[in-house]
Amino acid sequence: MQVTASAHRVHLFSPSSSPALSLPSAKHCRCRYRNAAATTVRMGLREDGPSVAVVGVTGAVGQEFLRVLSDRDFPYRNIRLLASRRSAGKRLTFEDREYTIEELRPESFEGIDIALFSAGGSISKEFGPVAVERGSIVVDNSSAFRMVPEVPLVIPEVNPGAMAHINLKGRSGKGALIANPNCSTIICLMAATPLHRHAKVVRMVVSTYQAASGAGAAAMEELLQQTHEVLDGKQPTCKIFKQQYAFNLFSHNAAVLSNGYNEEEMKLVKETRKIWNDMDVKVTATCIRVPVMRAHAESVNLQFEKPLDEDTARRILEGAAGVTVIDDRIQSLSYALGCHPDVRMHYLHVSNKDDVAVDDRQDLPQDGNQGLDIFVCGDQIRKGAALNAIQIAEKLL
Amino acid sequence: MQVTASAHRVHLFSPSSSPALSLPSAKHCRCRYRNAAATTVRMGLREDGPSVAVVGVTGAVGQEFLRVLSDRDFPYRNIRLLASRRSAGKRLTFEDREYTIEELRPESFEGIDIALFSAGGSISKEFGPVAVERGSIVVDNSSAFRMVPEVPLVIPEVNPGAMAHINLKGRSGKGALIANPNCSTIICLMAATPLHRHAKVVRMVVSTYQAASGAGAAAMEELLQQTHEVLDGKQPTCKIFKQQYAFNLFSHNAAVLSNGYNEEEMKLVKETRKIWNDMDVKVTATCIRVPVMRAHAESVNLQFEKPLDEDTARRILEGAAGVTVIDDRIQSLSYALGCHPDVRMHYLHVSNKDDVAVDDRQDLPQDGNQGLDIFVCGDQIRKGAALNAIQIAEKLL
Repeated sequence: MQVTASAHRVHLFSPSSSPALSLPSAKHCRCRYRNAAATTVRMGLREDGPSVAVVGVTGAVGQEFLRVLSDRDFPYRNIRLLASRRSAGKRLTFEDREYTIEELRPESFEGIDIALFSAGGSISKEFGPVAVERGSIVVDNSSAFRMVPEVPLVIPEVNPGAMAHINLKGRSGKGALIANPNCSTIICLMAATPLHRHAKVVRMVVSTYQAASGAGAAAMEELLQQTHEVLDGKQPTCKIFKQQYAFNLFSHNAAVLSNGYNEEEMKLVKETRKIWNDMDVKVTATCIRVPVMRAHAESVNLQFEKPLDEDTARRILEGAAGVTVIDDRIQSLSYALGCHPDVRMHYLHVSNKDDVAVDDRQDLPQDGNQGLDIFVCGDQIRKGAALNAIQIAEKLL
Repeated sequence: MQVTASAHRVHLFSPSSSPALSLPSAKHCRCRYRNAAATTVRMGLREDGPSVAVVGVTGAVGQEFLRVLSDRDFPYRNIRLLASRRSAGKRLTFEDREYTIEELRPESFEGIDIALFSAGGSISKEFGPVAVERGSIVVDNSSAFRMVPEVPLVIPEVNPGAMAHINLKGRSGKGALIANPNCSTIICLMAATPLHRHAKVVRMVVSTYQAASGAGAAAMEELLQQTHEVLDGKQPTCKIFKQQYAFNLFSHNAAVLSNGYNEEEMKLVKETRKIWNDMDVKVTATCIRVPVMRAHAESVNLQFEKPLDEDTARRILEGAAGVTVIDDRIQSLSYALGCHPDVRMHYLHVSNKDDVAVDDRQDLPQDGNQGLDIFVCGDQIRKGAALNAIQIAEKLL
């Protein structure tokens, strides 16, 4: 499998029919977006839809933006595909129409209603305000504006109210910024929030198992390339990460701050407080990269203000939008009957899926049923990034 | 790299000079043990040494027993290499002498002073008492006897006193059993105990990142084989684990109990209580397999009875036997200076090493400096199994 970048090709990180192959697609597609999941073509192109721009369309999240827009039949009057100068001029087919990728410029946002950004923090900082000035509502996947007090930080299932004052029809000249939370925050809070609403989380200890995709398409390629190299007895090529990633794990590559925590860990702390509008919730996070492709997992220990037993918690989670509960006990029965012990939950279940999967257990040592120990998995590119952003965009319609 | 088992070959999982290759050795060695690390040959063979047996010598831990015995110059009058009938008759060179692997039988223990067992729980249950009856002191790496009240469960750096009444010279006819704790317990408590002695741990929340080696040599081979298969676009072969392991993670494959926790998780709970002789310590564990080869990592959140600030904790850990402290702040400086952000700690640092590596940080949300958040890594085969067992054996001399 060739994993190096090619100047004239766009790498698709597409869903695969085989769970074994939830890897970047081996089939390089010549500047053509294909909806691998759908057999019937859905067309969101409609005169009454908004004018949409995708910024960073050649990246892993950019590609997923297109896939999710198509999967969800998102309405659009027209769509503008924007990227760096390097990718400008390439052609890309989306929903049976061919588009030319354009170089991102200030004037790219003329007439654009909704701009989906995923091209890194510095591009967002430079072009986000430009787009807003020109009347676009920017849904930004970077960390650039997340902690700006007046910018809503939104998970639609969790705090839709934070963006209630922003919509397409209510605009008067200027646009607005809405920030997409960090992937690990989204995945954690999708499971923790329904429980928080019921019993109020006072303390949350999170340990993450984070995929390559969080560092972008090139990091996924690096993991693949290194794995080939290590199996072949060669020294692994380290470009994105400073150390070997194949068959290794390491503390998240974000900058370490003076308090000993890295920026990724502090995002979980600060974003949770902002999204829950609760400055008192105690959050501790340890963020670790593990050699998997595109789904994050998180071990989350919760302490509540009020009692919450495991059965009630399960019913709450089963009723929560965007959450799938995986129940072990049924699987453990197969073991009791002498079969091979089954797995409680594993990460490939959630690759390329919209829902976040969760398993919950009473935290036995916590007195008075005031603790739960949950394990959450979610697709980093999908719910952790592109899907959440497009769900935000849907609320603007 | 050929990873399938061969009837006439013994697979060595040997230290490698390259961190990229901390994988099972590609070089299959025809029934010959070689001390890959040492350039000078150490000889423990001495008339005044004990008579030693290694049970399960062809397994990953059995091979590591030989390596550690040699590395540590462990004295022995003679050594008997025992395995299943399948391996009996094969020849193996240890410290420049050639031995024939013998089939494990009750009479194998005649005249044996110290028997190192690592052939699974059922073999330990069957042959452990037989060996004790014949006068051997058994150091057992399985879980068979760990929770038996009269059997000491020992980490030499942590609770050597528990086995103080057992030694070679004091025997009168019968031998004794000493249990080696589970790998994740050893690695966790190596770092947590020095802090516990100082400030008393009242609560410990552990999330593990466990390597293939914990499930034996065949599991390491399965991970390698599956990785080849997935890279080649094939369905992965699942024999040891029920689901794909390559590029995946899943809840530990131990049986799930009625309380929702699996046996591996409950080992951490129960063994910690026994080793610390503290039935009140509150331990919650989430045990996860990640696709790495032979070192476990653990994210451990500690709550203390007394205050313990981060600097004091670091000094305590720096002074602890068998513990290496990895300090981030120095590495974070390179980031502050504009260099690439460095890694806090990563797992390959500890593969094939004796010491457990630890990074500690104040758990900021816990009031009154009564919390620490630590990350621990240790070689599962070495300190998690073989080294700890041989350190126990050294205390018998």
